[in-house]
Amino acid sequence: MQPKIAIVGAGAVGAYYGGMLAHAGADVHFLLRADRAVVKERGLTIRTGGREVRVEAAKVYATTAEIGPCDVVIIALKTTANRALDDLIPPLLHAQTALVTFQNGLGNEEYLAARWGAERVMGALCFVCLNRTEPGVVEHFDHGTISIGEFVGGPQARTRELAEALVAAGIEAHVVENLVTERWRKLLWNIPFNGLAIAAGGATVADVLASEGLRTSARELMGETQDAARRLGHEIDDAFADFQIERSYSMGPYKPSSLIDWELHRPVEVEAIWGEPLRQGVAAGAEMPRLALLYRLLQRLALR
Amino acid sequence: MQPKIAIVGAGAVGAYYGGMLAHAGADVHFLLRADRAVVKERGLTIRTGGREVRVEAAKVYATTAEIGPCDVVIIALKTTANRALDDLIPPLLHAQTALVTFQNGLGNEEYLAARWGAERVMGALCFVCLNRTEPGVVEHFDHGTISIGEFVGGPQARTRELAEALVAAGIEAHVVENLVTERWRKLLWNIPFNGLAIAAGGATVADVLASEGLRTSARELMGETQDAARRLGHEIDDAFADFQIERSYSMGPYKPSSLIDWELHRPVEVEAIWGEPLRQGVAAGAEMPRLALLYRLLQRLALR
Repeated sequence: MQPKIAIVGAGAVGAYYGGMLAHAGADVHFLLRADRAVVKERGLTIRTGGREVRVEAAKVYATTAEIGPCDVVIIALKTTANRALDDLIPPLLHAQTALVTFQNGLGNEEYLAARWGAERVMGALCFVCLNRTEPGVVEHFDHGTISIGEFVGGPQARTRELAEALVAAGIEAHVVENLVTERWRKLLWNIPFNGLAIAAGGATVADVLASEGLRTSARELMGETQDAARRLGHEIDDAFADFQIERSYSMGPYKPSSLIDWELHRPVEVEAIWGEPLRQGVAAGAEMPRLALLYRLLQRLALR
Repeated sequence: MQPKIAIVGAGAVGAYYGGMLAHAGADVHFLLRADRAVVKERGLTIRTGGREVRVEAAKVYATTAEIGPCDVVIIALKTTANRALDDLIPPLLHAQTALVTFQNGLGNEEYLAARWGAERVMGALCFVCLNRTEPGVVEHFDHGTISIGEFVGGPQARTRELAEALVAAGIEAHVVENLVTERWRKLLWNIPFNGLAIAAGGATVADVLASEGLRTSARELMGETQDAARRLGHEIDDAFADFQIERSYSMGPYKPSSLIDWELHRPVEVEAIWGEPLRQGVAAGAEMPRLALLYRLLQRLALR
């Protein structure tokens, strides 16, 4: 029997991955708020690679109680809304339910583990450019690769099964040995480029790279992040960090997702991307003077 | 014979101190651009302490060539306009002319010394709240204390004479033994409070103090500044730094001058307040990771 999957938080990420799975025949149940009526009437539409992927009869619900216990719960809420999970998750649980966070940054697996047990928790890193252009419609611009792993220990059967389901849905999905290491590797880019973008008053990747000072600060922030990761058991070498700078040149005037959030006055994921890595790094004995300053500026800038 | 004094850069600071001196009978010559016609017709007005100080027949000029050689040249240009001095200063010089910078931050004495000789150079720190409300009119809100010293060596007769002239004009003026030490002591406040005000997107002194994170960053930036100053021979103890935080509580929602400049889209004195202290500190072997990041953010933020 195929697994019953819930999507909690059907913004662009949840709608895209859940929609692709549903279109491939998976049993997907969407928790929807604002877009529910529209999706019930018109289904979900994903515009990707010049074509439209349509999920006509998407199963949509107003509450997780209506969805009921699932085998896999994919969590794609904004991390700033994590508190809502305290009420949303319990109705979805049976003894074996896996909770998979598709969210950004650090602290999300820990949040789920503290409440519903570490053995349930999986995570995924999504490398994807999406935009919800109107209710029920998601535009998929680029990438889409996803890395899936366990919060505790190495991959299990369920890890591979979820990756296979995503691959069957046309998504490039990989199983990773150490999910948390991958999170730190992704933070190595997100901490400087998302952070400086906002703190410098709206700087694209090209703007950061064009300024010798900001480019130097980006690499120094990466160095602090490497040091924190190393102390926490995640070795990230200098060649990888240098490559993160190098590969960014091809991005041009790309706006990191946090900058877009900030410009549109949406919540910025300050704790997941800067606060939690700082706290974990400092607790492990790392000196992170630059990250601390950046985090504090972002805390206030995000209030506007 | 009383000294011939030129005021170069008659914004609020130049107009206030020059106007007070002229009102007390000193021989003051103002270089004026935009406000020249108005001041020629109506004189200078300084509103201070509930009264009006009027300089009816202020001597105003369009060029320094018209002013000719002076005994004392008071420089009150914005530091961002220092390049203009290369043409403005030479016509004002005779063999003994003293050049006195009333400007903010570090690097101004050095700029003058490199071009016209260190022995000519004096400096003053102005602790004053002023606003040029309309052409020829300066509003004096608070303070006004001025600390005068020599760039090279201790006070001379000319140092005391200028201080005495200011005192005679009703200004609280002090002679300081070590001007550069005083500059660093003033930077201890300006670096964090002016800088965080802008980088945090418009934070008053009260805003910085109300945020535990930003308050901590302010004190940490002071620590980096203390270390740089110490390596350059200017000992500033922790008690003084702590007091700079403590005394700031009484300022309430005060906007540091750089924040006002930034909000009004005027040039921000990024190099004098952050760039030059950073360069001097780093050259002396100080680690200044927070100041470096703040400086680079401000460089870009000031471009807007």
